[in-house]
Amino acid sequence: MLSAARRSVRLPVRTGAARAFATEHNPPTRFESSSVFPDEPQQPAVKTDSIPGPKSREQSAAISQFQDPRAHVVVADYLKSKGNYLVDVDGNEMLDVFAQIASIAIGYNNPELLALAKTDEFATAAMNRPALGSFPSAEWAETIHSGLLSVAPKGTPHLFTQMCGSCANEGALKAAFMAYRARERGESGTQDFTPEELSSCMKNASPGTPDLVAMSFKHGFHGRLFGSLSLTRSKAIHKLDIPAFDWPAVSWPAIQYPLDEFAAENAEAEARAIANVEETIKAQAKKGKKVAALIVEPVQSEGGDNHASPNFFKALRTVTREHGVFLIVDEVQTGVGATGKFWAHEAWKLDHPPDFVTFSKKMQAAGFYHNAETRASHAYRNYNTWCGDPIRALQARELISFIKAHGLVQHAAVIGDELYSAIENLGKKYGGQINKLRGKNCGTFISWDAETPEARDRFVAAMRQHGVVMGGCGEKAVRLRPMLVFGDKQLATLLDRMETVMKQEAGH
Amino acid sequence: MLSAARRSVRLPVRTGAARAFATEHNPPTRFESSSVFPDEPQQPAVKTDSIPGPKSREQSAAISQFQDPRAHVVVADYLKSKGNYLVDVDGNEMLDVFAQIASIAIGYNNPELLALAKTDEFATAAMNRPALGSFPSAEWAETIHSGLLSVAPKGTPHLFTQMCGSCANEGALKAAFMAYRARERGESGTQDFTPEELSSCMKNASPGTPDLVAMSFKHGFHGRLFGSLSLTRSKAIHKLDIPAFDWPAVSWPAIQYPLDEFAAENAEAEARAIANVEETIKAQAKKGKKVAALIVEPVQSEGGDNHASPNFFKALRTVTREHGVFLIVDEVQTGVGATGKFWAHEAWKLDHPPDFVTFSKKMQAAGFYHNAETRASHAYRNYNTWCGDPIRALQARELISFIKAHGLVQHAAVIGDELYSAIENLGKKYGGQINKLRGKNCGTFISWDAETPEARDRFVAAMRQHGVVMGGCGEKAVRLRPMLVFGDKQLATLLDRMETVMKQEAGH
Repeated sequence: MLSAARRSVRLPVRTGAARAFATEHNPPTRFESSSVFPDEPQQPAVKTDSIPGPKSREQSAAISQFQDPRAHVVVADYLKSKGNYLVDVDGNEMLDVFAQIASIAIGYNNPELLALAKTDEFATAAMNRPALGSFPSAEWAETIHSGLLSVAPKGTPHLFTQMCGSCANEGALKAAFMAYRARERGESGTQDFTPEELSSCMKNASPGTPDLVAMSFKHGFHGRLFGSLSLTRSKAIHKLDIPAFDWPAVSWPAIQYPLDEFAAENAEAEARAIANVEETIKAQAKKGKKVAALIVEPVQSEGGDNHASPNFFKALRTVTREHGVFLIVDEVQTGVGATGKFWAHEAWKLDHPPDFVTFSKKMQAAGFYHNAETRASHAYRNYNTWCGDPIRALQARELISFIKAHGLVQHAAVIGDELYSAIENLGKKYGGQINKLRGKNCGTFISWDAETPEARDRFVAAMRQHGVVMGGCGEKAVRLRPMLVFGDKQLATLLDRMETVMKQEAGH
Repeated sequence: MLSAARRSVRLPVRTGAARAFATEHNPPTRFESSSVFPDEPQQPAVKTDSIPGPKSREQSAAISQFQDPRAHVVVADYLKSKGNYLVDVDGNEMLDVFAQIASIAIGYNNPELLALAKTDEFATAAMNRPALGSFPSAEWAETIHSGLLSVAPKGTPHLFTQMCGSCANEGALKAAFMAYRARERGESGTQDFTPEELSSCMKNASPGTPDLVAMSFKHGFHGRLFGSLSLTRSKAIHKLDIPAFDWPAVSWPAIQYPLDEFAAENAEAEARAIANVEETIKAQAKKGKKVAALIVEPVQSEGGDNHASPNFFKALRTVTREHGVFLIVDEVQTGVGATGKFWAHEAWKLDHPPDFVTFSKKMQAAGFYHNAETRASHAYRNYNTWCGDPIRALQARELISFIKAHGLVQHAAVIGDELYSAIENLGKKYGGQINKLRGKNCGTFISWDAETPEARDRFVAAMRQHGVVMGGCGEKAVRLRPMLVFGDKQLATLLDRMETVMKQEAGH
């Protein structure tokens, strides 16, 4: 079905001017990982009767003395891992289409990243971590201009760097609350804060601590700190026993598949969801609670890989603008190319851009892009000791450069389409095992529902035993999160192993 | 007054067995930074008429295009900075006793840290960041056992690693809330969660989302995310306009100085503060809100360097135990040696250790130590994608090893005592400029109040112009936060510049 030899083009690693030229004028659309990872395994090699094997279990037991090991899949040998392949301490070589929960972009031990790690610039930045908001480095402006800012989403040219995805969402949220109040009071300087505001906020009381709320979608996941967890609505085990803000959740449209059979129903479901958003904003206002921000993932990832159409998001932008609600697009999992766009929300073609776009994971650096209105009115309002990490900004710059030079966004779009079609065909062959296939025209951001949660868990475990690391999400979904260096060879391997496992399952 | 030549002992950099021996049997008590930093400036060199100079201002303007520069002090040249000296882009060489808001422990460009940065282990860990809770590395158990766990506070041998101080406090807080509810329900497994709990928490509603509260001290600082900011009570500009939990704050004892003149009054103030803690726990309970955790800094740092006696903390441990309140000791700023103990709370000599000790800053790694009771009952309850960062754990291990080998905790205790005495003498000479001198027997964790907030700001600015980077805190305090490699030479320089500035101020 897949002729890797015919389609793939071997690209030398490009640097400097050659790379810049490729970026601007000649982005290749296919990528063959052996061009960068000559030692990458050709296929999985499973060496232990069960995964995790005995050495993994031994290491997990050692970790257990101080830290919870119950979510361990395997203990990995990162020195030996290469490209798309994760190697564990038992020597199992596994095709990894989960990629550290969607956070490895350009392969294990990417030679350009390793070369960066050995530079004096990187070592100096690693071992002299600054309080960035007060003592930035001589290189900071240039690192950001040539790196993170070079991929700033349209309309959000400002940047606040932080340490992780949860922090990024909370930083954006803080900026949204401050900007909302600034707009309310027509803020122009310190004198605009009343003595009552300044004293009441020290008691966590109104008016200084406002009764503003943020809104999120049911099944959404936005992190696990106290503000972000209040917005997260994925699984009870994430939220149970943790105090949360009384913030409203709105319904995600219940999209039916296949899309072309349910076009009218889906349009109606999305219209209902938008109506629910507007009703909730009004209902909150009646209770004296103004909705300052709405946060949304382009694809609800942890919650089950739930998609919606560009029209839905356009309507969401319209309704939030009408009610003065800041729109935070959480691209922590969707960002950096895997959907076939650098930012997933580019596919929406909005007339008015989001107010905030948050990122982390594959970018390795974390933070949020935002517009001019949401810059803080005073110094120290959004601030912390580190304000991010310069080495992660350097790494992001290198990642971005590699992605551009090798045309990996376009590559993800093209190979994602093929992967989608192939899985669609598998679904026809193994009825019932692949339901609600999702992610058409969405790069490699592909998922489907198993028949039951147990069948999903069985599938993921069997795939691992056949040398493929996969992840689930939601109640019974399987999600694919290959790296951007996932190519024809890996695609063929993935399909081969999927078919083997599905054949076994069908025979049960 | 200070005979550097007589007191200091030149120590070679020790490695391997020699270092281990030094750690166990022969910790030196004085450290001379030139033994490790031969190129460290002998004294400050100020080359521009004002600090920040023109190149700093130019770089700040470039950063301003995307990020708030209003808190910038200078733009630094980290490649040229050495030991205790920060060099800026204008070539100003400044003795740094603020150390990136107390987060540089063993000097700029410490050769042992730079050597670590150039190892394959570090490069691999930097460029293959794992989802640590699911795919830990082969080296993880050993890195932690020989590093962070080797300095685990007594009674808290478990460890959760995170990305920053705010995250660390929130992680501990989550663990405290979960453990509190586990104790209430006599939890033993999943079956103990009721269907009502599981469904209500998805709506941020009780009983799954409990009405538990956490408590903190007025003037305390615990971070800037939504849970930690709810506990922070330092300055209005940190809190204004950000929604917060309705959690109670209790009074910090109003200690009077000098301590020996106010022993009775201070004991009484501390007893009143303890009574306030107990009354607040009871008052909350009457409102149906149980206090699950109390968080406290050994020295309230951002809030003004407010100290209290070991007796106060002993009583705090007693009252929290009596009421089943978990005690979180926030050592983000006080930890890692500067107080003359590795952990500041060691000085309290508690009979029952704290339930949690949080750390970040000088450790470079962040997270919390905790006891067995507060391990989560189920997988994925306290979890996130990265769960910390292996390279920061490697850095922490190297830092800890260096600190032990060079006896830097003892060194901080000894030189801190001399520094305290010298500043006490300065205070006598320049009446009114040094008030409420704090930090006796507390290493280099020394501070005092200027006469007014304006006088403090003037002092800090003048010191910078004389080549010393210092920090303020609270309303009008100056806080010293030298690195652990601050030695006799730097002490002499600091005092000389302080006297110069105070003399000028007195002449005004």
